Amino acid sequence: MYELGVCYRNITRADRAATDALAALGSATVHEAQGRVGLLQPYMRPIYRGAQVSGTAVTVLLQPGDNWMLHVAAEQIQPGDIVVAAVTAECTDGYFGDLLATSFQARGARGLIIDAGVRDVKTLQEMGFPVWSKAISAKGTVKATPGSVNVPVVCAGMWVRPGDAVVADDDGIVCVPREKVAEVLAAAQAREANEGAKREQLASGVLGLDMYKMREPLAKAGLRYID
Amino acid sequence: MYELGVCYRNITRADRAATDALAALGSATVHEAQGRVGLLQPYMRPIYRGAQVSGTAVTVLLQPGDNWMLHVAAEQIQPGDIVVAAVTAECTDGYFGDLLATSFQARGARGLIIDAGVRDVKTLQEMGFPVWSKAISAKGTVKATPGSVNVPVVCAGMWVRPGDAVVADDDGIVCVPREKVAEVLAAAQAREANEGAKREQLASGVLGLDMYKMREPLAKAGLRYID
Amino acid sequence: MYELGVCYRNITRADRAATDALAALGSATVHEAQGRVGLLQPYMRPIYRGAQVSGTAVTVLLQPGDNWMLHVAAEQIQPGDIVVAAVTAECTDGYFGDLLATSFQARGARGLIIDAGVRDVKTLQEMGFPVWSKAISAKGTVKATPGSVNVPVVCAGMWVRPGDAVVADDDGIVCVPREKVAEVLAAAQAREANEGAKREQLASGVLGLDMYKMREPLAKAGLRYID
Amino acid sequence: MYELGVCYRNITRADRAATDALAALGSATVHEAQGRVGLLQPYMRPIYRGAQVSGTAVTVLLQPGDNWMLHVAAEQIQPGDIVVAAVTAECTDGYFGDLLATSFQARGARGLIIDAGVRDVKTLQEMGFPVWSKAISAKGTVKATPGSVNVPVVCAGMWVRPGDAVVADDDGIVCVPREKVAEVLAAAQAREANEGAKREQLASGVLGLDMYKMREPLAKAGLRYID
Amino acid sequence: MYELGVCYRNITRADRAATDALAALGSATVHEAQGRVGLLQPYMRPIYRGAQVSGTAVTVLLQPGDNWMLHVAAEQIQPGDIVVAAVTAECTDGYFGDLLATSFQARGARGLIIDAGVRDVKTLQEMGFPVWSKAISAKGTVKATPGSVNVPVVCAGMWVRPGDAVVADDDGIVCVPREKVAEVLAAAQAREANEGAKREQLASGVLGLDMYKMREPLAKAGLRYID
Amino acid sequence: MYELGVCYRNITRADRAATDALAALGSATVHEAQGRVGLLQPYMRPIYRGAQVSGTAVTVLLQPGDNWMLHVAAEQIQPGDIVVAAVTAECTDGYFGDLLATSFQARGARGLIIDAGVRDVKTLQEMGFPVWSKAISAKGTVKATPGSVNVPVVCAGMWVRPGDAVVADDDGIVCVPREKVAEVLAAAQAREANEGAKREQLASGVLGLDMYKMREPLAKAGLRYID
Repeated sequence: MYELGVCYRNITRADRAATDALAALGSATVHEAQGRVGLLQPYMRPIYRGAQVSGTAVTVLLQPGDNWMLHVAAEQIQPGDIVVAAVTAECTDGYFGDLLATSFQARGARGLIIDAGVRDVKTLQEMGFPVWSKAISAKGTVKATPGSVNVPVVCAGMWVRPGDAVVADDDGIVCVPREKVAEVLAAAQAREANEGAKREQLASGVLGLDMYKMREPLAKAGLRYID
Repeated sequence: MYELGVCYRNITRADRAATDALAALGSATVHEAQGRVGLLQPYMRPIYRGAQVSGTAVTVLLQPGDNWMLHVAAEQIQPGDIVVAAVTAECTDGYFGDLLATSFQARGARGLIIDAGVRDVKTLQEMGFPVWSKAISAKGTVKATPGSVNVPVVCAGMWVRPGDAVVADDDGIVCVPREKVAEVLAAAQAREANEGAKREQLASGVLGLDMYKMREPLAKAGLRYID
Repeated sequence: MYELGVCYRNITRADRAATDALAALGSATVHEAQGRVGLLQPYMRPIYRGAQVSGTAVTVLLQPGDNWMLHVAAEQIQPGDIVVAAVTAECTDGYFGDLLATSFQARGARGLIIDAGVRDVKTLQEMGFPVWSKAISAKGTVKATPGSVNVPVVCAGMWVRPGDAVVADDDGIVCVPREKVAEVLAAAQAREANEGAKREQLASGVLGLDMYKMREPLAKAGLRYID
Repeated sequence: MYELGVCYRNITRADRAATDALAALGSATVHEAQGRVGLLQPYMRPIYRGAQVSGTAVTVLLQPGDNWMLHVAAEQIQPGDIVVAAVTAECTDGYFGDLLATSFQARGARGLIIDAGVRDVKTLQEMGFPVWSKAISAKGTVKATPGSVNVPVVCAGMWVRPGDAVVADDDGIVCVPREKVAEVLAAAQAREANEGAKREQLASGVLGLDMYKMREPLAKAGLRYID
Repeated sequence: MYELGVCYRNITRADRAATDALAALGSATVHEAQGRVGLLQPYMRPIYRGAQVSGTAVTVLLQPGDNWMLHVAAEQIQPGDIVVAAVTAECTDGYFGDLLATSFQARGARGLIIDAGVRDVKTLQEMGFPVWSKAISAKGTVKATPGSVNVPVVCAGMWVRPGDAVVADDDGIVCVPREKVAEVLAAAQAREANEGAKREQLASGVLGLDMYKMREPLAKAGLRYID
Repeated sequence: MYELGVCYRNITRADRAATDALAALGSATVHEAQGRVGLLQPYMRPIYRGAQVSGTAVTVLLQPGDNWMLHVAAEQIQPGDIVVAAVTAECTDGYFGDLLATSFQARGARGLIIDAGVRDVKTLQEMGFPVWSKAISAKGTVKATPGSVNVPVVCAGMWVRPGDAVVADDDGIVCVPREKVAEVLAAAQAREANEGAKREQLASGVLGLDMYKMREPLAKAGLRYID
């Protein structure tokens, strides 16, 4: 299903303002607002805690143990992009380190999502360049075989197209199709708006059972209380 | 083996004072003092480092992808409890986030042990509500099918009954049967009492080989030194 | 392939000065400089972030669930050593805690690499004693069956001989054969020397494509740009 | 939660006739009939295909790398039993081979369920002694530390008590509490009775959509057909 | 990226004759002929050995623990189809057994590829209905929440669209985009044509080193022979 | 620790007669006789059941996704050898298929042990060429980068040197250092000699508890019987 050996230069990016507004809502709220689809698998973890970003995807399809296409991708980065990298086979090698991060950051990238390994993680944290990966590994890579840039890829079990919006934080990573960003943003903001009032009630000791009126449906579903 | 669709309201909790005193001793010492049984599997990890708690178990049996019973459990929480949640099948979904944590904290819960995923981990850390889980995931859950509250459960390979004592810290989680808490506490305190003196000796350069008088048993067991 | 029940007292350690100089270069650079061999598998992770050490290996072969030989190893430690411990079977038990760490530190050890579990991780971090392990577990171990000290071992997929140099940091762990430390150090320093200039260029927006002159080889390898 | 160092000689076994009748129904039907609880985790696999057994559990709690208690268990076996063995820690060692199988078979055991490894699998298949395990390994075990026989155990994530009924086949393993065997058997037989007619209809080309009258509920649940 | 709650009735299937001809070539040859892309991850395994099939994909997107959409899919099956099923979250439950297999077989399906579990595997083998899955589990599923039929899915790491050709055998599963089937078939047949002659030469003792003229490129790549 | 880019032509093979005699004893008995060391990790599995072989190791160090050195190894095979292949990184690709097997078989190889994937497994079984691997995968490999032949390697966690004896069967794979083959063979044969008499006794209903005189040591170790 993959096209190898090509780099698409013109991609349609999701709406900038809507994409940028997703970051503050976070991956969990966006995932809910989108109908519980679009999540990358939870083995993807941030290399350091606390970053919360959104951006438009520049996609990369990498060969195993070969990071050549990350250099090709660097040129395609525009401010506000997040690079989303998949590999054609399972690989934990350290594809990305402080030099590439310097280049990506200079181009305006907000982070990297890579279904493989990275290295120089201490420096990446000092630079404030967030990465979500499935491994950390000192093992470097070669530059020998072309993959592709800006073709649709499967990254950590999710289909990501160039230009789609991506939201990533400590809870995980969600992909929002570029055509749906405005709609998902609106749903996410509506969801968020209710949270403050709920949190206050719960903090005061009100039970979710009462606040969400769950007692009746629970009884109907057959829950029995035993003293 | 599991009873589904029930919530037991009256459970016998382990002695409060003895249970509370376990926290300071930590999971490793309590595990030793109990004869090296009771440990949950080490894939369970704290969502942030540094918390060290003990409490009495309110147990929850969850359906896959369904967190309804956590709301039922909330009502059963008394100050000093720790919620221990198992799932009837493998699941990494994010069953628990900041709203439920607000509710649990308001009820007096000291933490959550869940053999599944959680989300909103940044907020949970800011709230100081510790969780030990097997995954972090932005994926939410539905509220559709009853499980149970306060039935015995298998959580991360260990049998935990409602009211048993639980100790959790950066090293892991230990369950102490409610009938044995006083006995285990005494054994753990005795163990702890010796540690300071040992540490001093070892810090001064005395070898464990000499301090524990291991040279003779090692020779008997056949260890040979070769120059 | 393993010799059990022996402790070799006289081992040939890698050159001290060269070994010590490797720490500043880090595991990724040393691994590259050595021709991309010598890396332990990336499932080995530091129990806390930020430590970066190098040292000469005192090797230990442990029995499953039995840490007796770590005490035997303690006596063989000289200042500047790093203990490298393998187990004869898969095991995640907590072989090592604050007491052994106190002893190792008193003897001059700079860290522990162990293909198993450790515990007391909070205290180990407070002590500043770095450990790379495959698990954290409160489960203790017995002292019943001899293994060996200072025999060659397979640790996390890599062959490590007593006296070899070891470099460990947040990115992973590399073993350098004791005969090659000077040569690898020189290669690593040469590599490092170029990095500053490269980083500056990349930070200014120069692309790796141009800096590394990759455009022609990419075209030759068949990469096509599509507008 | 585990009692170590004891062997209970008198256990209450599930009703023999009802237990024996479960085998023909198979693990999937029994699991359904029991309300979808009681299943051991699916990493447990038969060492050869085609065996389908039921029996009453003699439980064993083993120490890691130590099969001593399997010999203690042999004496407790009565015709119609299945031995269910758990280990106090993760272990893939080969606890069981052709000699123990000869002994178990002579005592009347119908099989072994073990949350660890076994060996001599070619001979076991020739003998017709079925085993469900999580690993196959040539690695033998010692006889050094007592565990227990006929205490409740957690085996592959399920709580199994001595005397409970166990059903195992190519699809997996289900535990039925000894008090519920007759009730579960009746439910399973009722379930089975309908299957023949359904199979015939489906084989003739009738769709499940029609046979189960799913079209209306699917439409209500929101399914849309698009041409 | 996923569309939930829809069933597309009209899909464009890959050319029937070309798709059918792929089976004899096998997954390895087709994968090579396609440029080494299109392979599902190797954790997918046949439930029995020896089946070798090709067909056009009817895709299914399932909810965790819910096999409702497999019934919806049954109606969309045409002779020569293979059902390719993905789940919106990790799940090992047994979604498919002998009743559904009877229905699928009656509709003309040649097999099932499912990124989850199946059951009744003994009966499935007797029926000659091949399945490739990631687990075998007796655990059944509910029919509660719609997914989708004939939308593109990610199955075991690969993007599969309705109507694409699929080849599956003991070595694995390859997806061929419906537009490329003729081209890939031709390339695979050309590849296959050479194999017989090569096999004869190798069987007679000729070395691949000579047959493929590898000695010179190996020397150029730096291989040194040492006596 | 690995030497890359070399092929050693002259290796010292373990004694032929003694090596050949190990096959009949099997991996479990040889492993015991050697003092329970030398076993490769149990994730290594035969691609088909029933083969039982021993031979002298021709070792291969492969690059990830690159099977070039298997062709170099073919030339070094002598009748009675078993090829033992390691990879410098985790990889499940199908490095070996029916063509290479034809070549290996023509050279006199008795099997392949490979810490990676293989393909064409149906044909390999028909040819009677046994393989132990960690994966089966249709994914082929390139021929681009030299590794080594006949250097010591770590294969599935065990150190194997060229010329060492290897025993493999359904239970697993054991490596015997070439210097110890005669000694291990004698110990294994002595072990085997006792098995027949033991099996007879156990088959007649004698308990291991009595045959091995375990009752007293069990009581000393603290085992209590409870009626």
